[in-house]
Amino acid sequence: MNRKIFYALLLSAVTTLSAFAQTDQQMLDRIKEEGLNKSEVMQTAFYLTDVSGPRLANSPGLKRAQDWAVNQLKTWGMVKATREPWGKFGKGWEVQKNYAAITAPYYHAIVAIPKAWTPGTNGPVKGNVVLIKADSVSDLDKYKGTLKGKIVMLDVKGNVENTFRPDATRLTDSALTAMANATPAPARQQRRATTGGRGSLASMLALRSALSKFYVQEGVALVLSQARGTDGTVFTTNGASYADTAKTVAPELETSGEDYQRILRLVKAGIKVEMEADIKTQFLTNDLQGYDVVGEIPGTDSKLKDQLVIIGGHLDSWHAATGATDNAAGSAVMLETMRILKRVGFKPRRTIRIVLWSSEEQGLWGSRYYVLNHFGDPKTMVLKPEQAKVSAYYNLDNGTGKIRGVYLQGNQAAGPIFQQWLAPFKDMGAGTITINNTGGTDHLSFDAVGIPGFQFIQDNMDYSTRTHHSNQDTYDKLSEADLKQAATITAWFVYNTSQRDEMMPRKPLPEVAKN
Amino acid sequence: MNRKIFYALLLSAVTTLSAFAQTDQQMLDRIKEEGLNKSEVMQTAFYLTDVSGPRLANSPGLKRAQDWAVNQLKTWGMVKATREPWGKFGKGWEVQKNYAAITAPYYHAIVAIPKAWTPGTNGPVKGNVVLIKADSVSDLDKYKGTLKGKIVMLDVKGNVENTFRPDATRLTDSALTAMANATPAPARQQRRATTGGRGSLASMLALRSALSKFYVQEGVALVLSQARGTDGTVFTTNGASYADTAKTVAPELETSGEDYQRILRLVKAGIKVEMEADIKTQFLTNDLQGYDVVGEIPGTDSKLKDQLVIIGGHLDSWHAATGATDNAAGSAVMLETMRILKRVGFKPRRTIRIVLWSSEEQGLWGSRYYVLNHFGDPKTMVLKPEQAKVSAYYNLDNGTGKIRGVYLQGNQAAGPIFQQWLAPFKDMGAGTITINNTGGTDHLSFDAVGIPGFQFIQDNMDYSTRTHHSNQDTYDKLSEADLKQAATITAWFVYNTSQRDEMMPRKPLPEVAKN
Repeated sequence: MNRKIFYALLLSAVTTLSAFAQTDQQMLDRIKEEGLNKSEVMQTAFYLTDVSGPRLANSPGLKRAQDWAVNQLKTWGMVKATREPWGKFGKGWEVQKNYAAITAPYYHAIVAIPKAWTPGTNGPVKGNVVLIKADSVSDLDKYKGTLKGKIVMLDVKGNVENTFRPDATRLTDSALTAMANATPAPARQQRRATTGGRGSLASMLALRSALSKFYVQEGVALVLSQARGTDGTVFTTNGASYADTAKTVAPELETSGEDYQRILRLVKAGIKVEMEADIKTQFLTNDLQGYDVVGEIPGTDSKLKDQLVIIGGHLDSWHAATGATDNAAGSAVMLETMRILKRVGFKPRRTIRIVLWSSEEQGLWGSRYYVLNHFGDPKTMVLKPEQAKVSAYYNLDNGTGKIRGVYLQGNQAAGPIFQQWLAPFKDMGAGTITINNTGGTDHLSFDAVGIPGFQFIQDNMDYSTRTHHSNQDTYDKLSEADLKQAATITAWFVYNTSQRDEMMPRKPLPEVAKN
Repeated sequence: MNRKIFYALLLSAVTTLSAFAQTDQQMLDRIKEEGLNKSEVMQTAFYLTDVSGPRLANSPGLKRAQDWAVNQLKTWGMVKATREPWGKFGKGWEVQKNYAAITAPYYHAIVAIPKAWTPGTNGPVKGNVVLIKADSVSDLDKYKGTLKGKIVMLDVKGNVENTFRPDATRLTDSALTAMANATPAPARQQRRATTGGRGSLASMLALRSALSKFYVQEGVALVLSQARGTDGTVFTTNGASYADTAKTVAPELETSGEDYQRILRLVKAGIKVEMEADIKTQFLTNDLQGYDVVGEIPGTDSKLKDQLVIIGGHLDSWHAATGATDNAAGSAVMLETMRILKRVGFKPRRTIRIVLWSSEEQGLWGSRYYVLNHFGDPKTMVLKPEQAKVSAYYNLDNGTGKIRGVYLQGNQAAGPIFQQWLAPFKDMGAGTITINNTGGTDHLSFDAVGIPGFQFIQDNMDYSTRTHHSNQDTYDKLSEADLKQAATITAWFVYNTSQRDEMMPRKPLPEVAKN
């Protein structure tokens, strides 16, 4: 090659490159401006939390949030915005009255939350608290015929206080470095029971099941169980199945550690504790379907517009608060991502789709069934044609903390690509790529059928100590700056995933489970 | 002096000294054994908190705790144990029902506590929430005739989260060193209003007073005010005077920051919020006297037994919880101190008296009037004969944290004496003597009439962030190891104060206030 031709080619290459870089830089600037300075993420979070209320799977609160989100996506100019049914879930449920207090030896209203899918007390009840001492099913015999109208509890240890450590933390540099330097983990060992042998676990489960049945047979007025959490924070769970065929259980209140232990200490000291309660819960059975919220910004590249970039988070929450950090945060960030991309006038090559899941808290059902309906069955690894068209799925569901990087979920080839995309966000704390997997949320449903599915690394904040599934998961716990940062980065990831010539690299398809 | 005589004298001196030291050491060992290994302080705290309930001044809960303490002092063998009236306080008050919830746009039971000495709702009420916007009294005109049966609130900022700092701390070595190196502080400046000028404070107070009257005139159903505190922690106050002649106010709920701000955000966004509430409070007017609990271990030295060592703490609390750290902790430690000294068979030279104060939370009334009745009037500095007979008063009222030393309260001469007494407790973290004053509690009443009055330095723990006057001030927040340490050290101080030949050195008498 002579020198003239060489320079002409070089010039052409540099021009092309810088033209690209210029477009990208302009888009980055506009995304940053929209995401950081013109954000609507807190307004969106307000509607998902304060306005909609608790968003337990199939509850009226979730329906309100879904309807609002669909409408908002349309308002922002998205297409195909709708509630898409994914299959049968089960009963909806919500609390309509929640009052409980001790009335002897003195009056004190307690902090307690009905367990999800448990019935109410059918009007006000009043009764003495009885401590049930049972190590095995046969120990229940001695209570037969004595528990009608009583309030029952078990002898359990108090929760451990965390007061000398801060509730909230951010990932330290050394923690991030350790994540960045991680090597691919070996296949996970089969999980084993961690306490006692197989026998003791089995007998514990048998006792628990027998207790549940016994309480109903005896006609106890109310069951108190101790919630995880301190300082009146109550981490909630469900107390019965959401299946329409679920067995009847007794009304059950998950009680703050402070109140539970106070009552327990009194009863154990032989001091009579009397309680009154009035719990009303409603089961909703007129529609057992589960729904996901979807919406799109259509692709514009004739060759690529059938391909998809999907983003999501779960919109459902637990019932004790408004699920602000779990996961209105992630849902609001993903909605904001769509808003940003639309507002900056982005015409993507690939189609961008948002899906806000439901019934995540009961087993990722909304995303699992969505994947089953659209992309394939992880049990058989029989795939649908659309499976081949999803470039990547991005998920946000680890609370209100800002993005610190990405879990590659074992997809090593994605590493250098993400590294490049994160480069403009290093000064905002997001620069870590780890080969590590992370679990517990909806990207797993995509990963299970071979679609690159990613969850971002997020600062923990007070997620595990205070908000995750608790009565303290309220709008106040949202960090505005963190959510803005996250939406801006997510928008940039989506932009790049949509624009790059190739789809994101894939891992080999998972093996079909042997069993 | 010849050498023989010198040695004879020396031998005699050493023998005397070691005989004393041996007695002291034996007593120290017995006090430590009883206080650290055979402690009953948690049992005592249990009866003061869980069993007695909230102990607001003149409430039935305080009466229960006082009766229990008197009886317990007798059981342990103290003499003259009684409830001693100190003068007129005012009305007792207690909560008998506490329920409030928002019912639209969805159901959510809120965390809220009736303000002390406010009336109830006189049965269940239901109404819309109205935001009152008023910068001055005349702004209220526009609401005239519109508030009957409404639930009213003001637009106030949310509380600031503390999540990146631990709730609980202990004093650091450097903080203790700074206290030890402190120089006597200059006389305190007259306190001034800290926000705004005199005018703005006056108009704010005028507005507050007008609002209170206006709410009653209008017949509002309920006033919501925002409590200090986060994560459902509600720091309580009073909403009306305890005087038997107090003006009527509207029912008022101090509401958790999370719930207050949620309702406020909704109302400000134009979303209708409906609430229901059922608050019942009872005023007790059959006995307006205040009472302190007293009890003694009589002195046995014919020359010194008329002299007194007094220890105390306040037994009254706020009403939202059981006042565990404020101040069942101090009361239990002082009761335990008496128990330890009795149990080890100590026959003191001076008389040891415990006094557990009441109405401390409203202005140290129990101790002020006790001092006025027994020792003198700080306004005139006319003293009673007994004033001269009190060697020292020791107080404990800074929460559940262990003792780290003593505030000299400006009494420099006491420093070396305390230093010596603390020497055996350096390994337990108590070695700091500071010339500093500390305020806010009952030793001030003694100091005001020239009686050496001391409050111990204590670790802060989560007193200021979580428990002090809050609905989280429960038995669980007590640190058993800290209370044992404190009772052991207090017993040792009392032992020494009782046994030393001289009374404790005194500061010059305070000057009579000019006004």
